[in-house]
Amino acid sequence: MGNIAACCRSFWCKPKNPDIRISLPAICFVWQIAMIILFGLFVRYDDESDAHWSEHKHKNNITSDIENDFYYRYPSFQDVHVMIFVGFGFLMTFLKRYSFGGVGFNFLIAAFGLQWALLMQGWFHSLDPNDGLIKIGIENIINADFCVAGCLIAYGALLGKVSPVQLMVLTLFGITLFAVEEYIILNVLHVRDAGGSMVIHTFGAYYGLTISWILYRPKLDHSKNLSGSVYHSDVFAMIGTLFLWMYWPSFNSAIADHGDGQHRAAINTYLALAASVLTTFAISSLSAKKGKLDMVHIQNATLAGGVAMGTAAEFMISPYGSLIVGFVCGIISTFGYLFKFSSPSLSQAILSVQLNQLVNTFDFEGNYAKRTPATQGGFQAAGLCVALAFGIVGGAIVGFILRLPCCWGDPSDENCFDDEVYWEVPEDEESIPPILEYSSHMVGKNTDMMSQSNYTVEQS
Amino acid sequence: MGNIAACCRSFWCKPKNPDIRISLPAICFVWQIAMIILFGLFVRYDDESDAHWSEHKHKNNITSDIENDFYYRYPSFQDVHVMIFVGFGFLMTFLKRYSFGGVGFNFLIAAFGLQWALLMQGWFHSLDPNDGLIKIGIENIINADFCVAGCLIAYGALLGKVSPVQLMVLTLFGITLFAVEEYIILNVLHVRDAGGSMVIHTFGAYYGLTISWILYRPKLDHSKNLSGSVYHSDVFAMIGTLFLWMYWPSFNSAIADHGDGQHRAAINTYLALAASVLTTFAISSLSAKKGKLDMVHIQNATLAGGVAMGTAAEFMISPYGSLIVGFVCGIISTFGYLFKFSSPSLSQAILSVQLNQLVNTFDFEGNYAKRTPATQGGFQAAGLCVALAFGIVGGAIVGFILRLPCCWGDPSDENCFDDEVYWEVPEDEESIPPILEYSSHMVGKNTDMMSQSNYTVEQS
Amino acid sequence: MGNIAACCRSFWCKPKNPDIRISLPAICFVWQIAMIILFGLFVRYDDESDAHWSEHKHKNNITSDIENDFYYRYPSFQDVHVMIFVGFGFLMTFLKRYSFGGVGFNFLIAAFGLQWALLMQGWFHSLDPNDGLIKIGIENIINADFCVAGCLIAYGALLGKVSPVQLMVLTLFGITLFAVEEYIILNVLHVRDAGGSMVIHTFGAYYGLTISWILYRPKLDHSKNLSGSVYHSDVFAMIGTLFLWMYWPSFNSAIADHGDGQHRAAINTYLALAASVLTTFAISSLSAKKGKLDMVHIQNATLAGGVAMGTAAEFMISPYGSLIVGFVCGIISTFGYLFKFSSPSLSQAILSVQLNQLVNTFDFEGNYAKRTPATQGGFQAAGLCVALAFGIVGGAIVGFILRLPCCWGDPSDENCFDDEVYWEVPEDEESIPPILEYSSHMVGKNTDMMSQSNYTVEQS
Repeated sequence: MGNIAACCRSFWCKPKNPDIRISLPAICFVWQIAMIILFGLFVRYDDESDAHWSEHKHKNNITSDIENDFYYRYPSFQDVHVMIFVGFGFLMTFLKRYSFGGVGFNFLIAAFGLQWALLMQGWFHSLDPNDGLIKIGIENIINADFCVAGCLIAYGALLGKVSPVQLMVLTLFGITLFAVEEYIILNVLHVRDAGGSMVIHTFGAYYGLTISWILYRPKLDHSKNLSGSVYHSDVFAMIGTLFLWMYWPSFNSAIADHGDGQHRAAINTYLALAASVLTTFAISSLSAKKGKLDMVHIQNATLAGGVAMGTAAEFMISPYGSLIVGFVCGIISTFGYLFKFSSPSLSQAILSVQLNQLVNTFDFEGNYAKRTPATQGGFQAAGLCVALAFGIVGGAIVGFILRLPCCWGDPSDENCFDDEVYWEVPEDEESIPPILEYSSHMVGKNTDMMSQSNYTVEQS
Repeated sequence: MGNIAACCRSFWCKPKNPDIRISLPAICFVWQIAMIILFGLFVRYDDESDAHWSEHKHKNNITSDIENDFYYRYPSFQDVHVMIFVGFGFLMTFLKRYSFGGVGFNFLIAAFGLQWALLMQGWFHSLDPNDGLIKIGIENIINADFCVAGCLIAYGALLGKVSPVQLMVLTLFGITLFAVEEYIILNVLHVRDAGGSMVIHTFGAYYGLTISWILYRPKLDHSKNLSGSVYHSDVFAMIGTLFLWMYWPSFNSAIADHGDGQHRAAINTYLALAASVLTTFAISSLSAKKGKLDMVHIQNATLAGGVAMGTAAEFMISPYGSLIVGFVCGIISTFGYLFKFSSPSLSQAILSVQLNQLVNTFDFEGNYAKRTPATQGGFQAAGLCVALAFGIVGGAIVGFILRLPCCWGDPSDENCFDDEVYWEVPEDEESIPPILEYSSHMVGKNTDMMSQSNYTVEQS
Repeated sequence: MGNIAACCRSFWCKPKNPDIRISLPAICFVWQIAMIILFGLFVRYDDESDAHWSEHKHKNNITSDIENDFYYRYPSFQDVHVMIFVGFGFLMTFLKRYSFGGVGFNFLIAAFGLQWALLMQGWFHSLDPNDGLIKIGIENIINADFCVAGCLIAYGALLGKVSPVQLMVLTLFGITLFAVEEYIILNVLHVRDAGGSMVIHTFGAYYGLTISWILYRPKLDHSKNLSGSVYHSDVFAMIGTLFLWMYWPSFNSAIADHGDGQHRAAINTYLALAASVLTTFAISSLSAKKGKLDMVHIQNATLAGGVAMGTAAEFMISPYGSLIVGFVCGIISTFGYLFKFSSPSLSQAILSVQLNQLVNTFDFEGNYAKRTPATQGGFQAAGLCVALAFGIVGGAIVGFILRLPCCWGDPSDENCFDDEVYWEVPEDEESIPPILEYSSHMVGKNTDMMSQSNYTVEQS
């Protein structure tokens, strides 16, 4: 397959032209207009967000406005919304010269993805049988945000190496695949995955990794200078990490059952996250000379507990069960980063799936008791296979599409990880390249050191 | 009028002295003491925040504490609070050396403004007829935050060019004008403007612009070096943008009707915001060489959908209607920035007003049906005129007050956009000027290049 | 005592070795495993987070899921959670090269501390008499976050001068002492301290200060170069300040009584905070040449109103009473920073205690009326003494433990305030030292200026 990829590369390759002046506006306009038309044809308010809710209330003997689902779920929705836009967005600002692209393209594709997700998930889950229309309320917009999370995880695997046009295509297909995959796993196989460990994270990670593998750039390693972080970009990324970490209890409880379900999901996730912080720090320190901690681990593996609790957040796994999940996941996830057997999210996917099984053994008092544990275990494994298949096969197809000779506007190898390609970047007197330019300019003017000094810098 | 302004300038001008050591403490102390006295005379808890609420509950057959208005609105209040202090605050950190002033003075004037707004809005809206006292609860503090937003928009038009003393005066008058204007528009003309597109944004934008025009500094353009951003200041500003964008559904739903009203307002705003992100990216890319995106557009025009939905958030405009509003507003707002026919918020004001009218045509099932659409349209236009008149006339008066020869402590032209004037700024080894000083020092010591090297830098 | 300390120093001193490769992983693993075992033995869900809640509901005639305590408190919990991790975390990023440690170690010790706090507070407050187990729900995890706040305040006094291993020990003892102290003050003495001014802030401040005094480094003052801020680190710290400031109403209302109690606590705190912003700006400006504001004051003293309202947030002190509290506290707290009679939190502690007493005089309609004001005042004073005693004696013991010759991994005097010791820091081309290295390298290569240029830099 690597052979085929190489073959295709030589056949298709043409000089990269990262001009997106026609393609990006075109894709944004056309797809947004398509959204408007499809929403016009298919999407309406549901009972609880419609002006006729007072009639609905009377019919269902609801005595108070506070019983509207909005009040059960809106605080959690807002937290999830922050995770999607600030959490994932700032997590991707860690590269030294790709912070605009990290947070900006995250913003663009999430804003598109959530619209498309409302439609796709609506067709599968929220179709009103009476009139064939999709009825949306607070739960739908939470689910749309969830759905987008899968594509943002995939974006993480491609950060700095693709154009916004490619990201839009990746998002369109990603949401579509996600909705189908989710329907099969949850509604056909009746697999349990409340917080989406399997449906969101496994799918998203493999989808992104497969695309990344297809779009592999063999020469990229030589231009490593921009693929790292600087001090303050790592602090920006901690904003993302912390908002993801703090609000993960809302992520896992947002669409749980009213009452004790949401309550327990939040507590379990809170505990699992706390435990994975300690084991992440432990493994990170253990693995480096003098025990120096690595920001990459802290920024990512601390979240493992939240990811892994996704499937089981609502279960009666008891508080110590949550701690065990977080304990194990922090370890596995940090090892994932250490041995690079994974992208920033693959190890989370793997462990979430394994925990998935582990966690079922804790589900002492689950109410899915119609199936025997063994049977349910088999279905969970089948669900995992479906998620993997959609991620890998879907990713392969989308990857090849994104390599078709077309006006994708993707950057050349030298331009990867560089905001200059797609953004008007301010003349930044604080960054090193212009400073060196100035300095060498000053020096060079009189002593003809210019070429040598530039050479010196490139060496260092 | 420009002539008069020029005349006044020559007459009144005296050398600027940005010393605020007496004036700022004086104004803070006196006004805060005034607030305490006025609150002591006029402000008390309302029924739902008073210790006698249990009696009130019994009288009104409320069976549960969860029916307290606090639980309907507090999550939205906290989101609005974040928008005011982090959203607007960090949006104003984009200048390379005015981040302290951007976020710091925003903090000061918002903290003062909300107290004064509680009083002003209380006198107009929350006066208890029995005892003549203002009764405050959660809805009042949300409204106070809203009221402050108008002044912060005005601050955006003056960023870097005024002193904190002037900002305090601007805020005092701004809140006062706002409260009167709001009373006329909402309570006298019965105009619909739930989320404050007209009342807050149009007023705030014109108020700030008019003051900015009166305080115009003709020589400022020559000292452009500090009036731009640097890489990381633009990332900081994205924190502001994202918190405004994410929490705008709370802004527009915070004081909507309980139940389906709040629910629908949040969904409509969510959709409009998503659509305006796509059109903002499209127009920004379309307008630049090679399609390069401009951070100024992404930081500001993406919010247009939320501003414009302010008036209509609670209406039954259906989901596709919200998308259309966002679609159109993203375009208009980005054009506003491109052709500089506006300050950072004028284009939003213009479009919000136009959308105002547009949106009324979507209000299929509104419950304001006592007036015919044509009549209501007339009243909406009248409301707009009132907002404009208060903004422009009020801004002109305040602008002239701020130009009176007095100890305002405003910066000279060379000191604009520079935190050094009002803040103890750390000796920042990372910023360029000291670095160049070092470098040229090092070089100059031996080769006498100092003057030349400085010259070189200034040229670049 | 200073003599003894000096004696001990010479006796115990050995060269510092900041290698934490064994000690940090060991402490994290062992303690996390201990947590799992203790949680397994002692901690279960409470009635409202247990799957049997539906039975509990029927038994207690609760008709709706919205009556679950989760919906009363979860939004406030999430706000408090943000205060702990982003608020305190980013407040500690202000040092120029200790931002990783500031936000990262805050993350570590808070994640450990909340687990230990659930156990300690559980044993004292949430023990089910039927089965001897700790039953946890939303209120417990809010209290655990509160408890952690005390240790984070102590961390603030030691920032940059201790190792993460020492911080873990400090947290273990801190939480333990806190839980006992809290039990004595609230349950034995029946002192009023809803928002924890006394229990959390006084204890935390004195605990941290005493440890800081015991660990005093006489030679540290000479290496001042890293103990300040840079421009952007101060902006990062403002993120922390603002999230603390904005969410403090949630902090003080999170565990207040349902209904008007939470409502009033939020309003009172909101007002007190607003007032302390104005007086902080006033005193900060008044105290500096040309009235220049100091970021240290703005970052810290603006929070004084929230701290001080902790004790009285729920009382009927009326809105103007809250403003007076904030007014006074902003002044005292800023003076605290000016005259350095305090650490970043000592002045807050002092004033909170004084306000404690002041505020009781405002409690016109308190429902603690079984004691006379004088008696209650005596108990309040007794509570304060307990908090001080636990802070000082506990801090002294922990301080001496942390000075025992052991593998603490604490930094040498030259390595204080430097992330290089415990973190893999990216080669930061933006910071000055490497730039100068490059520049001098370039220059030095040809003109042999290297030594001189370095000297020049050290002088400046």
